[in-house]
Parts: sequence; structure tokens; C-alpha cells
Amino acid sequence: MITIISGTNRSNALSLKLSRIYQKFLNNLDAPSQIIDLSELPPDFAFSALYEQSGRNKLFNVFRQQMKDSDKFVYIVPEYNGSFPGILKTFIDGLEFPVSFQNKKCALVGLSAGVQGAGLALSHLTDIFNYCGMHVLALKPKLAQIEENMDVEKEEITNPLYKELIEMQARQLVAF
Amino acid sequence: MITIISGTNRSNALSLKLSRIYQKFLNNLDAPSQIIDLSELPPDFAFSALYEQSGRNKLFNVFRQQMKDSDKFVYIVPEYNGSFPGILKTFIDGLEFPVSFQNKKCALVGLSAGVQGAGLALSHLTDIFNYCGMHVLALKPKLAQIEENMDVEKEEITNPLYKELIEMQARQLVAF
Amino acid sequence: MITIISGTNRSNALSLKLSRIYQKFLNNLDAPSQIIDLSELPPDFAFSALYEQSGRNKLFNVFRQQMKDSDKFVYIVPEYNGSFPGILKTFIDGLEFPVSFQNKKCALVGLSAGVQGAGLALSHLTDIFNYCGMHVLALKPKLAQIEENMDVEKEEITNPLYKELIEMQARQLVAF
Amino acid sequence: MITIISGTNRSNALSLKLSRIYQKFLNNLDAPSQIIDLSELPPDFAFSALYEQSGRNKLFNVFRQQMKDSDKFVYIVPEYNGSFPGILKTFIDGLEFPVSFQNKKCALVGLSAGVQGAGLALSHLTDIFNYCGMHVLALKPKLAQIEENMDVEKEEITNPLYKELIEMQARQLVAF
Repeated sequence: MITIISGTNRSNALSLKLSRIYQKFLNNLDAPSQIIDLSELPPDFAFSALYEQSGRNKLFNVFRQQMKDSDKFVYIVPEYNGSFPGILKTFIDGLEFPVSFQNKKCALVGLSAGVQGAGLALSHLTDIFNYCGMHVLALKPKLAQIEENMDVEKEEITNPLYKELIEMQARQLVAF
Repeated sequence: MITIISGTNRSNALSLKLSRIYQKFLNNLDAPSQIIDLSELPPDFAFSALYEQSGRNKLFNVFRQQMKDSDKFVYIVPEYNGSFPGILKTFIDGLEFPVSFQNKKCALVGLSAGVQGAGLALSHLTDIFNYCGMHVLALKPKLAQIEENMDVEKEEITNPLYKELIEMQARQLVAF
Repeated sequence: MITIISGTNRSNALSLKLSRIYQKFLNNLDAPSQIIDLSELPPDFAFSALYEQSGRNKLFNVFRQQMKDSDKFVYIVPEYNGSFPGILKTFIDGLEFPVSFQNKKCALVGLSAGVQGAGLALSHLTDIFNYCGMHVLALKPKLAQIEENMDVEKEEITNPLYKELIEMQARQLVAF
Repeated sequence: MITIISGTNRSNALSLKLSRIYQKFLNNLDAPSQIIDLSELPPDFAFSALYEQSGRNKLFNVFRQQMKDSDKFVYIVPEYNGSFPGILKTFIDGLEFPVSFQNKKCALVGLSAGVQGAGLALSHLTDIFNYCGMHVLALKPKLAQIEENMDVEKEEITNPLYKELIEMQARQLVAF
């Protein structure tokens, strides 16, 4: 089971649409997957599910268990202020350590309205996941100017290079 | 007015103690300062004060205004999972852009229970602040094994090198 | 005196052309400058001017002195293999430490044939210069797809945004 | 065949000693290996073996071929000026791209006289290798204060934690 994390809690986020698009690529490879949408996290989880409260928030525990039970992950990461969204790191800070990460494998996808495609965000996340003992696939597509390169209504990527990169990454993750 | 940000919402955090210690160093330089303690943020601010809710959370707006009105900052940054706490980035994601950052100046201090002193966290934050247009002082003390190097009760740094680095950084920030 | 470093030893490098373009911007601000072209380094300097040979290569010492005597720098950084050219870091490794860096100031410009504009290179260099005690200007133009955005013959930038960013950065460096 | 790269051209480098120590760990796992010592590179290779000279330096071509023929690598990386040695990146810049990297696997080890253990160097290198299409093992031992933690004469690591980390990493690389 591959878990796809839509890396923001913004409503109607393109990250969530891209998560569903990624899921279709995985379906084509007969790889079962599920999506975790950070917009569904309990709104106060940063205060009720971390540190000494760790494990005590029943709603957050459902997400925690899903993450603990998965061996492979796809992180869909929008660029906020030159890096990943804070909420994504807070989510990571709330997971059981190191069992949620150690010797697991993940694929990272960056997206941005601007021209950088979240390149620095993916670099920062690689540092974090490697620190936590999780291997990161070398290929990390950086989907710059995402709005011009997807059909938001149909939930399709229109840029053929972007499509090819994601297909390649999905295949690599399944084989990783 | 220099604003010191205690970079975590963990209760009784060493970051808050270090913020108060840093404030004493600034007092000695006759530099007025205030502390923002992230543990006092509204618990659901990640969902009620960002994106389309930006500016609508009155409690969060008080913090926003303080950040907007300051020109210089000290960030006290504990190491969580090989980087900064997610809550700190979420706080940054909630600030008014770019007016809270552009052409302002900041000093970064890292701390960790382990041996790294939040080195990668400070690198990631530098990327973020530079992206936002804020200059970062080159000197970034990395206070590794912080518990062995401070008197937690008396709120004093006991390691003379750590003390010297912070004194030097505080002086540089005032002159920056 | 501002020293502009053309960050590669490749012959006829675009970095050198951009260094001359940058110099014109500085001329317009009445800021005197000089260019150091890494293609003019002694070819074996990595073996004859570093470590225990430090200071013994007379040809390299000329560059060393120029760097030691300057207070402000512009680094023109092409993207090689996802970061800066190795030769640029070797050049830095050969400089007198810390007097060539400590409390000095620099501006970084990235360029690439591809779409990233050397973003990671500039992040890595910022880490290095901050470690060495040199302040880095927050604004770091990333000149992606440089060949399509300059007139190589006339040595002019044609992309108006790129021009504006460099003008702004040059002004900031002079005032830094 | 695993290739171990001693990541500096400094004579009598600790990196070379650590490369030999690492080789013993691989021997214990019956994993054949060879060492590339950057101090044996042709002194002018940065000018005679890169860019338009690529492939024309017969001495450098021997190293190039070894790198092209290997599937797994160990990089022993000393900390120079807050990152990896420039010579190491220049060596990488001289390799055949992408065939020397694509879908290959590597392990990174950092060392430093100081307390950081080349943490940033390993982060920067991870960015570079991932860009080049090479997977990097998550576990990256950071051997801080290396001189106090090894017996230089006997070429042995004395710090039991360092030993354990390298043993673990070597095992993971063989299985990667």
C-alpha cells in the first residue's frame, strides 16, 4: 500500500488534485494506494497531538496509524515561502518516530505557481526524511507553473514532460 | 524593537528559556526587545488564519502585527526531525507577505539535545528568509547538547563558548 | 572596490560575459569593480596552492590578495550538476581564512541553461559563505534558460525581469 | 564492485585512512571494493579534462572509467569551509553524465575536525547526486572531531558509536 500525502491544508488545493492524478498513474501500474489529505487533519493537532500529547488525539491517531502501516509514500509538496508548507512538517513532527520512517521509501513531487517548482522544498524534505532514516528516490519532479501545465477541471497533467516524469517516478517507486 | 521568536509550541520549552536569556544579552546592549512565544498561538491558527482566512483570526492578528512592526528578529530554533519545528514554518506561512520580511534583518540560533545544534534547520530557514527578502546574519550559533550547557533553573548558559557566540551575535544584530 | 567572480574556468563562459554585464550595472552606480575570471587560474592550483602549499603559488597569490583586499563581492554562478562548479569551491578553499570572508558582504547570481537557475547552487554557497562569516544579500537572481534571455554577442540581458533583478541587487550591494 | 572515493587531494588525508578502514568493513561482508584517491588525480585535470576537453585526458580517463563501471559508491567527505572539498565536486564535474550516476547507489560519510561532522557537506552532496539520478542511502554518519575518535597510526576507529554506524551503513549499502 502506497500512501500519497497531499502536503497542504489549503482548501481545494492543487496538491490534492495532483494526489488524485498520481493515484491514477499508480492504478495503471496495479499498485494499490490511499490519499492522506492534510486539510482533513484536526485543526488543533499541532497543540493536541504532539510532544507530551503524542498519541492522545484519537482523530490524529487514525492518520498516525496509516503512516505507520505504510512502507512507501508519495509526498505532493507545494512551494510556500521558498520551502514546504509548515503544516506538512508539523504533520511529520506528530508521527511516531522512528517506526514511521526507518528503512521506508518515498517519492517527492514539487509544485509551484512560480518558476522554481519547489526545488528547495524538496531539498529540505530530503534532509528531513534522510535524518529520519527514510530513503528518498533520486528523481524528484519539480512541476513549475503548475496552473499552466494541468487541466484543473479534468484533473489531468497537460505538459507531456511532467507526465513522463511522474510516470517514470511512479514506476521507480513501485520497484524501489 | 527586536522581536525574539521562541520557535516551538512545546510547553516549558528550552527555546523559551533561551529567548529570555537572549533578551538579557540584548538588555545589556540597551536594545529593547519583546518575545513571541509560539506556544501562545491560537491552537487552530493553521486552519483559521492562513490562505483565504488570512487576516481573519483576531488573536493571530496580534502576532501578525508585532511581526509586521518589527525590523529585526532573533529566531530561537530547536531541532525537530532534522530541521525546524513545523509550527515555526506555519507561523511564517501566516504572516503578511512580503511586508513582514522584505529588507528586514534576523539572527538565527539553533539548539538541540543531540550533537548537531540544528545546523540543517538553520540552513533551511536561511533559504526561506532569503526567499522572503530578509537578510540573515552570517553567524548562527549552533547550541548542541543544550541541556548539558545551560543551567535550566537559573536560565543561564554555562558553556563559555556558547555565551561568547550569542553575545557576539547580539552585538552584530544591533549593528546590522 | 567590488570584486566580481566569474565562477567557472570553462572557456568563453557565459558567466564571464555576465560578469562584464554586471560590471556595467555597477559602473552606472559609480561603483568601482574588478573581475576575477577563474579560467585564468594556474591550472594546477588545486595541487600547488592549497593545504600545506597554501601561499606558495605566486600566480595564485595574486588572486588571493585581490580577494583579501576586497570587502564586497559578486559571485556569478553557473549550475553544474545541480550545484556550483567544483572549481569555484576549490578557489574558495584556496583563500586565506577567515580574513578573506569575515564580516564581508556578497551578492550571488545564478545562471543555467535549464529551468532551475542554479537555485540549489546559491543555497549551498550561502551555507558556505555564512559558515565563513560573510553576509549574503537575500536577493539572489536565478537566471534560468540564460541563453534565451541574453544577447550573447552584444553582451546584454534581454529579459526585462532579469535586468530589473540585477539592477536592484547591484544597488542593494552598493548600499549593503 | 564498490568504489570508495577519498574525497580530498590533501596529502596524508584522514579521508584516505578512513577509506581504507571502510574497505575493511566491506571485506568483512565479502563485498569487493576499490579506492579512488583524489590526491592521485592529474594536477591540472580541472583544466585538461572538463568541458570541451572532456575525455581527452588519458590519465583522468582511467578514473572516469572506474566510476562508469561501478554501481555502488562510498564517498568519504571531509568538511572544508562548511561543505565538501571543491576538488571532489570538480572530480564529479569531470565524470561522464548521466551514465556515471543514473540509477546507481551511494553511501556518504562525513568527517570533520570540528563538531559538525560535515553535515551540510552531506546535504549538499545529496542534492547533487539526486540531481544526477543517483540514490543516496538515508544513513549518513557524521564523524565529528575525527582525530579524537580514531587511532590514526593503527587506522582504526576507536569511537564505538562511529564504528557501529559505519558497520550498519556498509551492510545497508551491500543490500541497497
